Amino acid sequence: MTFSQRLAQAARMVDARLAQTLDDAAAGGAPSRLVAAMRHAALGEAKRLRPFLLVECAGLFGVAMEATLPAAAALECVHCYSLVHDDLPAMDNDDLRRGKPTVHRAFDEWTAILAGDALLTIAFALLATPQTHAEPAVRAELAAGLAAAAGAGGMVGGQCLDLEAEKLGLPAQPQQVHVERLQAMKTGALIRFACEAGAILGRAAPDERRALMLYGERLGAAFQIADDLLDTQGDAAVMGKAARKDAGKATLVSVLGQRAAEARLVVLESDALAALDAFGPNADVLREAARFVVRRVK
Amino acid sequence: MTFSQRLAQAARMVDARLAQTLDDAAAGGAPSRLVAAMRHAALGEAKRLRPFLLVECAGLFGVAMEATLPAAAALECVHCYSLVHDDLPAMDNDDLRRGKPTVHRAFDEWTAILAGDALLTIAFALLATPQTHAEPAVRAELAAGLAAAAGAGGMVGGQCLDLEAEKLGLPAQPQQVHVERLQAMKTGALIRFACEAGAILGRAAPDERRALMLYGERLGAAFQIADDLLDTQGDAAVMGKAARKDAGKATLVSVLGQRAAEARLVVLESDALAALDAFGPNADVLREAARFVVRRVK
Repeated sequence: MTFSQRLAQAARMVDARLAQTLDDAAAGGAPSRLVAAMRHAALGEAKRLRPFLLVECAGLFGVAMEATLPAAAALECVHCYSLVHDDLPAMDNDDLRRGKPTVHRAFDEWTAILAGDALLTIAFALLATPQTHAEPAVRAELAAGLAAAAGAGGMVGGQCLDLEAEKLGLPAQPQQVHVERLQAMKTGALIRFACEAGAILGRAAPDERRALMLYGERLGAAFQIADDLLDTQGDAAVMGKAARKDAGKATLVSVLGQRAAEARLVVLESDALAALDAFGPNADVLREAARFVVRRVK
Repeated sequence: MTFSQRLAQAARMVDARLAQTLDDAAAGGAPSRLVAAMRHAALGEAKRLRPFLLVECAGLFGVAMEATLPAAAALECVHCYSLVHDDLPAMDNDDLRRGKPTVHRAFDEWTAILAGDALLTIAFALLATPQTHAEPAVRAELAAGLAAAAGAGGMVGGQCLDLEAEKLGLPAQPQQVHVERLQAMKTGALIRFACEAGAILGRAAPDERRALMLYGERLGAAFQIADDLLDTQGDAAVMGKAARKDAGKATLVSVLGQRAAEARLVVLESDALAALDAFGPNADVLREAARFVVRRVK
């Protein structure tokens, strides 16, 4: 199976689990309008990179894909909620996402806010159920890690720094260290946690867990630079969302320039690959994933 | 100690725990603007009814107040996040809350959305930590219960039904059963869970847990009717928020009329008290709480 086939297979499994989770929510009394908006946000064509990283990292320790799906779906719910809220008029005001109207365009603002809230909440419901792992201690550890990665010191905090820089002009001259911090929080924390969550599910040894977190951290940083490079080069048809939407945003491309950003991408790819050394050939799929992230702009 | 003193004491302890939680978030790298908005939303004068119910229900089983505070603070974070999002222009568009400008007025919309997101996330972080309970199984049970009460089949779902009825006019004629369902979800689920969480922390027997859930359910319904009656009678100075803000909303007062709503309140109070019978005089504070909720409008 090629890397692309493997990625697509995981995406299909995660999609099915997400669909089932939303069906369960509807059966449990969630209003149909709310569930429809959650489906719009969470289902459909998407790479499902974070779930894939979780699945593959857990796989290093012999955890079967099927057993990782509740946690993988939880992670994707958090990612999807963040897209719904980031797209809102008060934030990035985007009309297009994954080639479809954004949730507040397809429905309205209040429905989009609530759908995001509900997706975030359902992520923790998924993690808390015994399907995620038979051991409550593992579930509690996953919930603590997800909350840290997604919260004020992670993803939400990064989005705050991003909007602050854009809307309030702080800091006046965005500098590399500031941009790296905000991106490590905004996109890096959840990607790093995807890898850590695989290690938690796999009951990895501390040094293995740290290695996967380092891999995830560098991969997340590379992913963001690749995304920013694509944004400056890309067109909306390829990206499924508006191109050059980040004009005016503080990115490493705007701070360092395109050449230096591309060079940074190469370093991050090499760091990510080095973090996998201890795993030998078992980690070949994760190596492919690092190349896949970088290859998008090569 | 009188009931009011006991309520105020719990509120002070919960406030201190909330303040500490937000200090920890700031120390953990959360942006200062985000933490300021979270503080604005979560700290200050408030009854802290939900935490109080949790503390008192856990107390029935010998759990010390100090030991209940992380879970109590988590519950209040969820309540506060829901107020921040409900107040947004796209939802209820309120300017005043607890006698202060709402978060989107004091800051702006995007900060308010993110502060709400972060408060919801931090609630699950609190529940996942060993401070909440030494047993991971108890923490996982609390997280599952909170997610169910707060999510698409609970609080968020109820807010969706409420806004749907108001903004989209569905159902054309709000009827008692529809209003009771939406209120049971919107406010009832979290109040009921506050009582259930006390039982979970106290390792209550199944019938004791069910009795406290019934108490919480009836108390929650009574609380909402009292709130709606206050809204039709009250003035903004007493309520700390705009009066008659619910004009046009589907409430039991608008559906049944004031007299019938008051009679329903008496029945709910009596149901709530009856649910406590098995606990004898130990539950006297919870009995006072039921009277307190109803007394607000008598």
